[in-house]
This record gives sequence, structure tokens and C-alpha cells, in this order.
Amino acid sequence: MNFLNEVSQHWPDAVSLAAGRPYEEFFDDDAPGRWLDRFRRHLADDLGQTPEQVRRTLFQYGRTKGIIHHLIARNLAVDEDVHVDDEAVVVTVGCQEAMLLVLRALRAGPTDVLLAVAPTYVGLTGAARLVELPVRPVAGGPAGVDLADLRAQVHRARAAGLRPRACYVMPDFANPSGTSIGLADRQRLLDLAVEEDLLLIEDNPYGLFPAGDADRVPTLKALDTRRRVVYLGSFAKTVLPGARIGYLVADQRVGGVDGAVGLFADQLAKIKSMVSVNTSPLAQAVIGGALLEHGCSLVAANRRERAAYTRNRDQLLAGLRRRFPAGSPVRWNTPAGGFFVVVTVPFPVDDALLRRSAERYGVLWTPMAHFYDDGRPVDALRLSVSAVTPAQIDLGLDRLAALITDELTRAAIPAG
Amino acid sequence: MNFLNEVSQHWPDAVSLAAGRPYEEFFDDDAPGRWLDRFRRHLADDLGQTPEQVRRTLFQYGRTKGIIHHLIARNLAVDEDVHVDDEAVVVTVGCQEAMLLVLRALRAGPTDVLLAVAPTYVGLTGAARLVELPVRPVAGGPAGVDLADLRAQVHRARAAGLRPRACYVMPDFANPSGTSIGLADRQRLLDLAVEEDLLLIEDNPYGLFPAGDADRVPTLKALDTRRRVVYLGSFAKTVLPGARIGYLVADQRVGGVDGAVGLFADQLAKIKSMVSVNTSPLAQAVIGGALLEHGCSLVAANRRERAAYTRNRDQLLAGLRRRFPAGSPVRWNTPAGGFFVVVTVPFPVDDALLRRSAERYGVLWTPMAHFYDDGRPVDALRLSVSAVTPAQIDLGLDRLAALITDELTRAAIPAG
Repeated sequence: MNFLNEVSQHWPDAVSLAAGRPYEEFFDDDAPGRWLDRFRRHLADDLGQTPEQVRRTLFQYGRTKGIIHHLIARNLAVDEDVHVDDEAVVVTVGCQEAMLLVLRALRAGPTDVLLAVAPTYVGLTGAARLVELPVRPVAGGPAGVDLADLRAQVHRARAAGLRPRACYVMPDFANPSGTSIGLADRQRLLDLAVEEDLLLIEDNPYGLFPAGDADRVPTLKALDTRRRVVYLGSFAKTVLPGARIGYLVADQRVGGVDGAVGLFADQLAKIKSMVSVNTSPLAQAVIGGALLEHGCSLVAANRRERAAYTRNRDQLLAGLRRRFPAGSPVRWNTPAGGFFVVVTVPFPVDDALLRRSAERYGVLWTPMAHFYDDGRPVDALRLSVSAVTPAQIDLGLDRLAALITDELTRAAIPAG
Repeated sequence: MNFLNEVSQHWPDAVSLAAGRPYEEFFDDDAPGRWLDRFRRHLADDLGQTPEQVRRTLFQYGRTKGIIHHLIARNLAVDEDVHVDDEAVVVTVGCQEAMLLVLRALRAGPTDVLLAVAPTYVGLTGAARLVELPVRPVAGGPAGVDLADLRAQVHRARAAGLRPRACYVMPDFANPSGTSIGLADRQRLLDLAVEEDLLLIEDNPYGLFPAGDADRVPTLKALDTRRRVVYLGSFAKTVLPGARIGYLVADQRVGGVDGAVGLFADQLAKIKSMVSVNTSPLAQAVIGGALLEHGCSLVAANRRERAAYTRNRDQLLAGLRRRFPAGSPVRWNTPAGGFFVVVTVPFPVDDALLRRSAERYGVLWTPMAHFYDDGRPVDALRLSVSAVTPAQIDLGLDRLAALITDELTRAAIPAG
């Protein structure tokens, strides 16, 4: 991520098909203040807090697990048909902190390992590195997860004396692959988790952005009758990145160091108290107010954003078809929603190529090699459609096509 | 901390001389909105950002090291005579995240250890446990740090094959001891750090709250001509806890994994990107606006709060003198400022006693044993004067005196 930031700062005029940031056109100057007021009224009118208590809730240190947990639980019920106790929710500093907490809790000793569907979000591998929890890749493939490979990896790890604690997966419009897991495979994945005594860490930042209504599939957590799923959520894409509010749902019953059995969420909250004490109540209040303004549903609230992402995705796919017609060695996938499309080319795609692309062609994208932890070359790149206009997409594709054409020509000329 | 929360939730009517939260009387409902607007104008008028850029700065993902770093650097120059490059500042999710980042960076291998002046703030020992960095205590004593013991502990650790990376110290009105380090000892501590090739981690949450003007002493960082000090700051006590904004200053030059030399702050920012990506720009903007409103000085801005803490401290000390006159076996220290006073009694003070105090006497305080990591009994308790009124202090002391009298009587009667 640092390399990407550096490149984009160095070439600010390049079209960025790299950034996974949400669409900016609908940002509203007045929204944070309005939402803060809305949450204040909720504390007073719905929760019966006195003016002094409202001030204390917003301005003081506060509850480690957060102050909008009840609204998040309601949001999950309304939007995802996920029904969990408020106490199983921990509000975190973005989804990144949620990942860190879960991975730190799972890392009890040096034989613990994490499985993760590859390619994998870099925030996950970064957090795992920080807590010294080795990540072993599981093949993703066109179905989103290769279940046979997952089972084989579990067995392989155990045979090596290791303890696979969980498998990380992004079932909806994954970052970076764009791939989704079908309903039948979700059920099979949950069964496998039970059979192999594995937790599933479900990360769902893009679930509200299907291209078509039929492209929404129940989350693993909605199907999780056996408490195998720790769910990670984010309001960065559905409300506002600048609040840095995410959350986790951990309704598993676990034994603590003192032998008492409690909620996994409470164990994670103890870790959180050593990472950030608690999440900013002011920032939580902004998100809480947004949830209240929309009756705790973010589906309708994101109608315009979803339409923009779908329009952009269609623009990108049509643009790729036009520039690389049948017969071209350039291929791409067609995600059913989300922010990302993966383009495969017949040459290795590395940081040096990205730098050349930025410098000479004026277009940024992300080498897919960043999402594999093994340093091997990968012949693919990720394009993001989330923070650009259709005109920028066309300009970016023109420049990308020029780069690819030059690379193909260069590959066709034998070295002198 | 969790035990304390549990006790205070269980006996909400007890007078709390336990909470280290800042004074609430001056919290202002309108302040966050006003400060946010003030920072918006700064982005537009002082930094020349367009309305679109202002929205992006506040609402999008942002710079890992933060967006109010320049204001924090100015604040340090104005209030502390500390002069550092903006780029050496990392804005963090409260001071807790700053601690975590520094400790994680220092923990390069299993022989690394941290020294910390004992008694030690529990947030430090918690963060150290999380990153598996063992903490070895250094005697604090009445002078704030026992320099001979510090040197002995460094040598002892090295003789045991360990690598003492740094010493954590709170030189001003420390939590929990209330003790401060004098100017001459600060100079000696800096010399010792150079001689022993040690970093000093200076944590300074209470520096702006001296009881008298003569009680302010330059920070270690202000005296740090040899870049031995990593400075940790917090706006929780000086502006608003609910923003959860802290920061660190790390102007050391260090070698990275790639061999290149860079700022320690940049290495810490990389770790931060895996913990929380970036600190909420909205929360930063609130603090940034507060800084701007006061010309980047928080000394005058905290005039009323400082007066309240001094008044409360005086009330507590006078109340102790009245209830435990000369000849009493009860003793206490007289901190030159800050939030805390330590009371020593002739019997062990543990969690069971605190529970009895809450249940039967209606007063909360903190066992000093919480601030030592070795589980040994300690005959002392911490009283906090920061979040109470003078009337509450009197009531709390009445109750505490009743508890202590009963304990002394009980100790005087031989077991039957």
C-alpha cells in the first residue's frame, strides 16, 4: 500500500484505476453534523439519557465494545438477515482493527497458522505479519474458493504439526479478485468448517454493491447456524471512510485464561483495550446517526453509489471489449458487483511495469502480485472502478491499452 | 481496567476516586461542530484546498501519518519548546495506539525487552503483553526514577543475553504515582540513555496540569539534543477524550529492512497501516480545530481545568490531613500536579478490599498492585481527583476513612 501511495503521489495527474476508495460525488458537507445531531437525539429520546449523560457518552472515554453496537446489530438484521445479540458486536477503528484483534486472539502459540483464500487483501496479510501468524494460501479460483484445496491445506498443515485456526474469506465481490462464492458453495464451506473444526473469518466490505438484484447472495453469517463465522464489517464504503468505523461480530462461546466461558467478542474487546482503548465515540456517533437516518438500512441509502459502481463496471467491461476484441491475448473476469476487475495479460506484471505505466502512460493500477505473499510473478493486474468517472475510465483504458500494446510488441521482438 | 469497569458498573452510586477521566464540567455541546468548521476553514484558507479537496481530506481515507501533524508540531513548539519536523509526527488513535506502534517496532526478536519505571501505567504493560515484549521494572522512588537502578537493570538484562531496547517513563505527575522527575535528573537520564545506547519513551498526558507555575519542568523531548526520546502525546486530557486522538514524535533516523535509512516515524506509520490504516480524519479535524481556535496553545485553553484539578488536589490533601492527623499510620504523597495521589496504609490493598470498599462503604479507588506486574501485595492505593467535585471528594474521603479505620481495627484484633 505504501508503494502505491508513493506512486500516486509522485504522478498526481495519472488516471488512477488503482485506488479502492469509495465514490466521492455524493459526499455531503452537512452530513457529519446532521448525523451527529441525529445520534444525540437518539441518546436523549430513545435511550433516555440526560443532557449530562449525552455529553459524557460522546465526549468522554467510553465502552470498549462501542456505543453503536445496538444499531449495528439492527442494521445486520435489516440488511443481511443476520440476527446476533448486541453484545456480540465490537465497534472497531475501521475493519483493519477488527482483523488485527481477531488474528491476535487466534495467535496463541507458534504452531498456529491462518488459512486465507488467495489472492488475499493486503490488509489481512499485513495484520497477520504484525501478530506473527503465518498465512497459508488456499486456492480461490473462479468459484471464489476451492473447497478441495481448503480441505487439503487443513490436512497438510496438521500433518506438519501446525494448528490451522481459521480461514479468511471475502465471499462477495472480493478484493482483489472481484469473485463471489455461490450459495451452494457457501453451504459446503460452512459444513467443511464444522467437519474440520475451523473458524471462518468473513470480510464483507462490498456486499451492498451487486451489479444486479439477483447478484446478492446471503452472507456466510446469515447461513451460520453453528457459530462458525466471525463476521467483519465496514462503514467505509457504505457511509463514510473518514469516520474509520468498522466492526466485528463474534458470537462464539470461548474459554478464557481463567477457565470461565464467555463471548469471543469479550475476549476481543480485552485485546482492543490494549490497541486503542475504545473507538472514538464522536466518530461512532456520525455513523450511528447515518444508520438512524436510514432506519438502520444502508441498501436504499446506497442506491446512487451502487448505480455509479455498476455504471462504471459496465463502462470498464465495454471499454475492455472494444480495445481488446476476440482473439486478443488479453483476458478479464466479469464480477457480479463490487469495485474490482482483474485483467490477465501474457507477460509478468510487476512494480517496475507499474512505475513505467505511471511515468510514461499516465495510468495507475495494481499488480496482482501484491495480493500473493510468495513473491512469484503474476501475469495480471487489478482495475478499480470505484473512485473514477466514466470519462476517466475511458482515458485510463486508452492509456492502459497503449501500455499493453507496447509490451506485447516488445515481447514479440527478440532481444538483440 | 476491565475489573475496575466492572466494579464501577456494579456500584454506580459509589463515589469514584478511581477514574482517571478528565473533568466534565466544561464540556461544551457546540465545541465539536465549531472545531470541525474551524479546521475546514484552515484547509481552505490556509492550505488552499478547493471545496472538493476539503471534502476528500475529511471524508475519504487519508494520509497514514495524519492530517493535523503540522498543527501538533506547532503546538509542541508553542507549549513545550519542542521543535520537530512535521514529518516526525504520527497522529494515532489515542496515545494507546502510539504505545502499541512503538513497542511493536522495538520488538524485533525474542531477546528484546523493555524497561519501565515502576509503578507503570497499565496501558503500557497491556500493549507490551500484546506484542510479547517482556517488561522489566525499574525502581521509581520519590525522585520519579532511580537512575542507579536503571543502569543496573540495563546491565542485568544484557548479562542475561537480553536486549533492553528502551525505557518507558512518565516524567510529569505520573500515572499512577503522581511523581515528577526534577530537571537535573532529566539531564542525567538523557546522559544515561546515550551512555547505555537506550531509547527513552516519554509519555506526557498530564504535563499541562502543574499545581503551581513553578511546577512545570521542560519535557525530556525539549532537552533531547541527541534524539534519544520518542515522545507520546494525548489530547484526551487537554481537549476531548471522545475524539481518541493521540500522537507520537519519532525523529530518530533508523535503518529499514531494505537497508535504507529513514525516519523512525515512517517505520511506525507502516505498522500503523496494519493496525488502523489511518486515524479518523473527522476526529482529527475536531482536535485540529481546537488547536487552531487557541493559536495552537493548550496552556491557556486549559486554565479552568487546571484550576479545577489544583482545587481538587488541595481539597483531597487537606481532607487526608484532617482525617489522618500526625501519628496516624496512613501516609500519602504530595504530587506537584496531575490527577493522582498515592495513599499508603499498613495493610495489603487488593481487589477483594476494593470490592468490599465499593459494596459496604460506597467508595472506589485503585489498588496500586494493578500497576506492578509481579502479583505481589502492595500496601497502597491510588486516588484520582480529576473527575469529581469537592463535595464528592469529601464524601469519598469520609467513606475511605471509615474503611481504613475498620481495617486498622480488624488488624489490631488477633484472629480468634
